[in-house]
Amino acid sequence: MSAAPAQPTVVTAAVLIIGNEILSGRTQDTNLAYLAKKLNEYGIQVREARVVPDIEREIVDTVNALRARYDYVFTTGGIGPTHDDITADCIAKAFGVELVVSPEIAALLQRRPAPPEVMAARMRMARIPQGAGLIDNPLGPPGFHIGNVYVMAGIPRVMQQMADSLAGKLKRGASVRSRSVTAFLAESQVARRLGEIQDAWPHIDLGSYPFQRDDRYGTTLVMRGTDEAGLDAMLDAVSQMIVALGAEPQDVQRG
Amino acid sequence: MSAAPAQPTVVTAAVLIIGNEILSGRTQDTNLAYLAKKLNEYGIQVREARVVPDIEREIVDTVNALRARYDYVFTTGGIGPTHDDITADCIAKAFGVELVVSPEIAALLQRRPAPPEVMAARMRMARIPQGAGLIDNPLGPPGFHIGNVYVMAGIPRVMQQMADSLAGKLKRGASVRSRSVTAFLAESQVARRLGEIQDAWPHIDLGSYPFQRDDRYGTTLVMRGTDEAGLDAMLDAVSQMIVALGAEPQDVQRG
Repeated sequence: MSAAPAQPTVVTAAVLIIGNEILSGRTQDTNLAYLAKKLNEYGIQVREARVVPDIEREIVDTVNALRARYDYVFTTGGIGPTHDDITADCIAKAFGVELVVSPEIAALLQRRPAPPEVMAARMRMARIPQGAGLIDNPLGPPGFHIGNVYVMAGIPRVMQQMADSLAGKLKRGASVRSRSVTAFLAESQVARRLGEIQDAWPHIDLGSYPFQRDDRYGTTLVMRGTDEAGLDAMLDAVSQMIVALGAEPQDVQRG
Repeated sequence: MSAAPAQPTVVTAAVLIIGNEILSGRTQDTNLAYLAKKLNEYGIQVREARVVPDIEREIVDTVNALRARYDYVFTTGGIGPTHDDITADCIAKAFGVELVVSPEIAALLQRRPAPPEVMAARMRMARIPQGAGLIDNPLGPPGFHIGNVYVMAGIPRVMQQMADSLAGKLKRGASVRSRSVTAFLAESQVARRLGEIQDAWPHIDLGSYPFQRDDRYGTTLVMRGTDEAGLDAMLDAVSQMIVALGAEPQDVQRG
C-alpha cells in the first residue's frame, strides 16, 4: 500500500530512575513521561526505562548495561547532599574514574553562607566524576554528564529544568510524530482490520488503547512513526475503517 | 546503638511494564506504584522495574533476565485482542512452551455473543502458554501465571483487580514497614546527623526527600525496614535530631 521512506536517523536513549521511593510506591514517578516527550522533541527516542534502588552495585551495573546499548542514558535521582545520594559515586565507578570536586559547583554552593556542617554537606553536591561536564540548573546545583550518560535530579521541577537546558546540545535524530483517533468500538471489533492496516505500514506503530466511558466501550488508535505522509495515509485508512464499522472517528489528534 | 534482629524472610519481585504508550510518554504509568504497595502488603518487595516496548525480542529477553533473578515477576500490558498485544506469545517463547487455547477463557469469551470476526479477535485473549494457571479478573478475561511470572492487564482498573485477586496465593515474606517525619530543615542541615543515624541502624533504609513549600525548604525523612522496634527507635532518633536543630517534627506517619 505504501513504501517505507528512506530510513531516518534514529537516536536512542534509556531512562534510569534511581530511588527507593519510586520502587516502594511511596512516590509516583512522573519523570519518565516528561523525559520521553521532551527527548522526542529533541529527536531522541526512549527505548527502555528502568527503576533501581539506591544500591551501588545495582546502579553501576545498570548504567554500564544501558550506556553500552543506547546512544544516551538519562538518569534521575540521588544527587542531593545526604548519605542516600550515591548517584555521582556510582557513575564515577561505572566509568572507572575518580570523583572530584567541581570548582564551578563549589563556588556556586559557597555563594549562600551556611554553618560549616551545613556547607560540608552541601559540598557533597559539588562532587562529579573526573572529566564530566555540567548540566545547567537555574534552581540549584547543576547536574552533570560524562560520556553518553546525563545525570539529573529526581525532583520533577528540577529535573525538568535540567532536561529543558539540554535543548540543542544533544545529537539529533528523527522525531517520532503521531496521529490518533478515537471511536466507540470495542477492540475486538477493530482487531482484524487493524492488523491489516498495520501490515500495510510496517514502519509505523499502530497501537490500540481500549477505554470505557458512560458504559460504552471505546478504543483510541494511535499511530507513531517518523514518516509524516505515511502517518496521514494510515490515519485515513483507520478513519475509513471506523466508518465502515458503523462508528464515527472522533477526537483526531496530530502530534 | 541497636543490633539487627534475626534476618527476616525476603521475597523479591520485579515489575515489567510492557507498552510503547508508556515509553512515548503518552500514558502516565501508575501500575508500578500500585503494585509496589499491594505486593508489599503481600510480603513481597519490588526490587526493580523495567519498561519495554512492544517488541518480541525485548520482552522475551527481559522476562528471562528478571525471572532468573527475582522470586516473582509481574508484567502489565499487552494482553488484549489486537495485533500489538504480544505478551502471551512472548511469555510462551520465554518459557519455551507452546501457546494453547484455554478452554476456560474461551468459554468465558463465548458467553457474550458477537459476529464471527469479532469473536475471532476476542479469542486471541484465550491463548495462554501451555501449563499456565489463570489470574481472576471480574472485569473481563483472566490474566495468567506460569512459573514465577504473573501476567496482567495494562489498564490500571483491570490490573488492580487482578493484583487484588492474588491475595493469599503467593509466597509470603516480611512486609516492609515505614515511619516518616517532616521538618522545615534543608537537606544540607540534616545531612551529617542523618548519616550517623543511618550508620546506627544499617538494616533500615533512611531516605531524605526535600521539598519547598511557601518559600521554605523542608525535608521528609522516611525509614523503611522490617524491624518494627528498630523503626520506632530510629524515628525517635530522627525526631530528636530535628528538635536539636531547632525545628519541629511534623506529620509523623507509620505505615
